[in-house]
Amino acid sequence: MDFDRLKTTIANEFGTPSVVIDLDVVEANIARLQAMCELAGIRNRPHIKTHKSPVIAAMQRAAGASGITCQKLGEAEVFADAGFDDILVTYNILGEGKVRRLGALLARARMIVAVDSLTTIEGLPLAAEIGGRVLEVVVECDTGRQRAGVETPAEAVALAREIAARKGLSFAGFMIYPPEDKVMETQRFLDQAIAGVREHGLDVRMVTSGGTPNLNNLGLISGVTEHRAGTYVFNDRMMMRADVARQVDCAMTIYTTVVSRAAAERGILDAGSKTLTADTGGGLDGYGLILEHPQARIARMAEEHGMLDLTGCNQRPAVGDIVRVIPNHTCVVANMVDSYVTVRGDELVGELPVAARGRLR
Amino acid sequence: MDFDRLKTTIANEFGTPSVVIDLDVVEANIARLQAMCELAGIRNRPHIKTHKSPVIAAMQRAAGASGITCQKLGEAEVFADAGFDDILVTYNILGEGKVRRLGALLARARMIVAVDSLTTIEGLPLAAEIGGRVLEVVVECDTGRQRAGVETPAEAVALAREIAARKGLSFAGFMIYPPEDKVMETQRFLDQAIAGVREHGLDVRMVTSGGTPNLNNLGLISGVTEHRAGTYVFNDRMMMRADVARQVDCAMTIYTTVVSRAAAERGILDAGSKTLTADTGGGLDGYGLILEHPQARIARMAEEHGMLDLTGCNQRPAVGDIVRVIPNHTCVVANMVDSYVTVRGDELVGELPVAARGRLR
Repeated sequence: MDFDRLKTTIANEFGTPSVVIDLDVVEANIARLQAMCELAGIRNRPHIKTHKSPVIAAMQRAAGASGITCQKLGEAEVFADAGFDDILVTYNILGEGKVRRLGALLARARMIVAVDSLTTIEGLPLAAEIGGRVLEVVVECDTGRQRAGVETPAEAVALAREIAARKGLSFAGFMIYPPEDKVMETQRFLDQAIAGVREHGLDVRMVTSGGTPNLNNLGLISGVTEHRAGTYVFNDRMMMRADVARQVDCAMTIYTTVVSRAAAERGILDAGSKTLTADTGGGLDGYGLILEHPQARIARMAEEHGMLDLTGCNQRPAVGDIVRVIPNHTCVVANMVDSYVTVRGDELVGELPVAARGRLR
Repeated sequence: MDFDRLKTTIANEFGTPSVVIDLDVVEANIARLQAMCELAGIRNRPHIKTHKSPVIAAMQRAAGASGITCQKLGEAEVFADAGFDDILVTYNILGEGKVRRLGALLARARMIVAVDSLTTIEGLPLAAEIGGRVLEVVVECDTGRQRAGVETPAEAVALAREIAARKGLSFAGFMIYPPEDKVMETQRFLDQAIAGVREHGLDVRMVTSGGTPNLNNLGLISGVTEHRAGTYVFNDRMMMRADVARQVDCAMTIYTTVVSRAAAERGILDAGSKTLTADTGGGLDGYGLILEHPQARIARMAEEHGMLDLTGCNQRPAVGDIVRVIPNHTCVVANMVDSYVTVRGDELVGELPVAARGRLR
């Protein structure tokens, strides 16, 4: 493939740094995950936080996805505007302003929200009232990640009963995001929670699990009805380390220019933390993998400077060279730009807006 | 001051997380820096990368600033559109696409650019040709920070002569960004570089230094004609650690809601790395300072989760509480949002677009 020609085209038409998405790789990733879910008998509800693009979500839906997952209401609003009508928001919605926005969404889409506290539940009936129909609610359960989610099956059962007791709310089931190495612990938690709510006459219509690294566990937890994966659509260095993606499965590369070589063992890329972010990927070496110079370390970050340590690098880049970087964490990079440059292999396709970028409320 | 009332207003009118700027503090910061520069007899050329707002830059100009500093051409374009006509771009401009954009800027504004390599210089005459007037060029010198910039006075002199020899370019002087503890080394470098170019009949019209922490060194390096400070306008935890700002000088706070308290010693804010960023501020403890709970650590980040460690915290926040956070690094937070919420003390003022957000090319 002639990446030199593509680099020149992208530099002239868009400039560097550019966040480039290979749609061929995206399509392959979407098809592979859908096939995995179907093989496991689990519905696929992709998390749009990775791509933030209704165009790519439509590709996921066309391949067979059942609904989408959003992390914030602002994301759900962008996707509802684009016609998506089955949306899980995996977040505690708090405050009257947000509850009212949830109600407005509910008036035009099936909405499911997650809760892990009574305070959150108490606010939600207003959304159902505004939406004019039932709001489905799942109880978020923490099976070891220590983030959000109730810590015991007993708490999960208690919240399920609180949901079921409220006008306009329907207890839909449970949400988990299990640590990849805690399949057994998660199964035990889930079994107890399901048995517990059934004792109180409640039905568990859905159990939603998530995470791209958990694709290696797909089908192992009985009772799970759907999976929320986000990163798989683009992949990144973290997914390579998690052994759930190969380098050729990485759809996102940052095209960036070497702007300084002030010393023999140093260099600077024009992609700094405003592009690659300061995300270390949980202890990865450096801030990205340079495909042309894998031995070069992106050692430090300033906002517009990616600082290269070239000590381990035999063939060193020159000022003006354009290189391609696989980021540590693709989701956070997507959030830095207003649009992707899209390609297929070494052919330029065009530009794609990151429609839900920055929707953090 | 009645911050409870302001929190409710902001939550209802904008939602959380919101990046809030206190304009009273901004005005005080602008006035103080301007006075410091005037006392030292040094021109003030603020770096707009911190606020990215022509409205705030106009406040700086009204207070006496001479021109502005931008890090990328895309930022300069936003400010030229807003009528700013004296712009230093502290970055190597490479590639024909960017040189042409620089030429278009030069046609309507005084433009000064920095270089640290012959390759960069060779591309610049085209900009002067397009702009129809002389492009001023400064040589970036590295006096110990090990980022961009030539490493020796001899290299600086050689590049100055290359600039002077080219049609359409004018050697304007030197750019430095000295480490705060290397005043003497910087003075020595600068003295040699200035003497070196004078030997070749070149005039040094400007020496531009920069950095908010270097305000504590203002006036100490002889020959410096102007200072580029950015962060001073908002300040942050890094500036407090650098002892160049107090807590009351921090104009930016993030209003964020506690959305989960799944365990006694843990909690979650709705401001994650999509708001506060993953910037550690070079080793600060946690990802921000919570004004209402200074003993709470913002210990870890997910995109929409700021994860609290409450072990050291006596009075612990409840689900639904809104708290105010001073970020580690204000410039990178500004780049995450499309607009600020503006206040004066505990009074809401309105909203202000971050007009040059995300201009990374």
